[in-house]
Amino acid sequence: MIRVGVDLGGSNLRAALFTDDSATPTRVIRQPVGSQRDPDAVCSAIATVVEELTAAHIATVTVPISVGVGVAAMLCDRRGTIANAPNLGWRDIAFGPLLASKLGDRFAIGIYNDVNAIAWGEAAFGGGRGAADMLAVYVGTGIGAGLVTNGQLVEGTSSCAGELGHCKIAWGADAAPCACGSRGCVEAYAGGASIMQRIKRDLSDGLSLATVVLAGGIDAATPSHVDQAATDGDPWALELWQEMATALAVAIGNALALLNCERLVLGGGLLGRTPTLLEHVLAALEVVAPRAAMTPLTIVAAELGDDAGLVGAADLARRGVSIVGA
Amino acid sequence: MIRVGVDLGGSNLRAALFTDDSATPTRVIRQPVGSQRDPDAVCSAIATVVEELTAAHIATVTVPISVGVGVAAMLCDRRGTIANAPNLGWRDIAFGPLLASKLGDRFAIGIYNDVNAIAWGEAAFGGGRGAADMLAVYVGTGIGAGLVTNGQLVEGTSSCAGELGHCKIAWGADAAPCACGSRGCVEAYAGGASIMQRIKRDLSDGLSLATVVLAGGIDAATPSHVDQAATDGDPWALELWQEMATALAVAIGNALALLNCERLVLGGGLLGRTPTLLEHVLAALEVVAPRAAMTPLTIVAAELGDDAGLVGAADLARRGVSIVGA
Repeated sequence: MIRVGVDLGGSNLRAALFTDDSATPTRVIRQPVGSQRDPDAVCSAIATVVEELTAAHIATVTVPISVGVGVAAMLCDRRGTIANAPNLGWRDIAFGPLLASKLGDRFAIGIYNDVNAIAWGEAAFGGGRGAADMLAVYVGTGIGAGLVTNGQLVEGTSSCAGELGHCKIAWGADAAPCACGSRGCVEAYAGGASIMQRIKRDLSDGLSLATVVLAGGIDAATPSHVDQAATDGDPWALELWQEMATALAVAIGNALALLNCERLVLGGGLLGRTPTLLEHVLAALEVVAPRAAMTPLTIVAAELGDDAGLVGAADLARRGVSIVGA
Repeated sequence: MIRVGVDLGGSNLRAALFTDDSATPTRVIRQPVGSQRDPDAVCSAIATVVEELTAAHIATVTVPISVGVGVAAMLCDRRGTIANAPNLGWRDIAFGPLLASKLGDRFAIGIYNDVNAIAWGEAAFGGGRGAADMLAVYVGTGIGAGLVTNGQLVEGTSSCAGELGHCKIAWGADAAPCACGSRGCVEAYAGGASIMQRIKRDLSDGLSLATVVLAGGIDAATPSHVDQAATDGDPWALELWQEMATALAVAIGNALALLNCERLVLGGGLLGRTPTLLEHVLAALEVVAPRAAMTPLTIVAAELGDDAGLVGAADLARRGVSIVGA
């Protein structure tokens, strides 16, 4: 069935047309969001792209074409209301209804949190394929997750499910402050941005000359250099990775204790580039996650890369999940 | 539709016949498990009770009668295999198939973890009624939970979902040992058994004469006395309750961050008798749970009491959830 997936980020708007049952788009359009960033202008731009992708089909289809939009935003209901999209500067925007008004009743629109759309893409077509109970965890600048239970995406009552990054691993006055305004979130320790800050601080304190040499300077140091240093046996790098791995494993293990998943999908920009950190995470999971949760679990890497969100959003809309106005 | 709910604990076997769409049983049988505790004898006893409850109906029904059994055990699949039932002394028992062989094909049997059956009872007929996304947390001797997402019970891939009590709030060598064999589980701090140990230890160390006086002796002291002492302003009791409340709130708040529930149902033998502790838990949740998870959430008390498991198990079987051999 014809369907469209849209990925709306802070910088780029991507849209893909799917015309068969695969995860391979027939056509993809990618363009900058540009300087006209108010909701009306962005919805008009999305509508133009969707109409262009579907122009050859619109006359022949007899039911509304499904359009799923994954957006880098905190939603607050299942009808596409955006509470906060920091990268777009939006607050309290009736995004779903606005886009629906642009596209009209030839289209059936679903608005999804971007990480949820990505996780569903993996569940339906990627690393989570065939697993009725799946957790997908993405460790990049921040930490996000998507949950599938009984074969369905868990959006939660206001489309805010999956906030693994804001699970607390510390509390009280000493807990690390998080960008979300709270304290002690795992993201405030083991998210990519937090790890980068920690690396700069520790290297500035002279804790690992080996890593500075590997990186060619303190300011050039990245988690990849730390991973290399850890692989080489640098004590600071090993200790830092053990600490980060434990933080991630506690948060993930607690989610597994609750969800008893068949599959854990790991992705995101950080873990893909830090194989030694990943090894530590897997080892720490064996220690901190309940055995009953680990026994039936298979752990795999995310497969779909940048297309996961497009594939997932399109498929969710096709399945009629959280359709605006339905 | 005629259905039977069974609750198999370590001491008692209870079974209830439901003949209308309500949560009120038409008839209940309760008897001790007794001294014949091998799986064959227990399954025979269950079959006898189920046949007695349904004797007046079995000739008139045209489809198998649904029988849902909630069992105080760790299951390891969705077909009723028990990995471990400490109170019955069972390990690796094909409980579902064994019971099915006793009852024959006039009955359709589902085996559920007892806490999951209780949680589903609340979801379908109790405090969680009408909420598609619900978390039910029971704080008694241990800490258990049941999850409902998209209107369905989350059993997990091997029927071990909902193990909130074994979410970690501490790790490493200093973390408290848990009865499960791991360390740092929230149950090892804020489960009723752990709280009792802590109370005895602290009172033996002379930390609260006021509580000893209230209880009439150290060995007589219960969480209810501590709750009274906290209500009266005893510094030790207030501090202990703040610590326990934070532990519970971190575990519950992390689950809410993942699940974004509409409803949180609180129950279990401890929280019902400690209103001041409950107040502290609710206040701590406001601090540690993400705002986006708290905004749409309603918190209620469990409504169904001891019948929740019977009601829930019967209803799950009626809905065809995890039917043995299906």
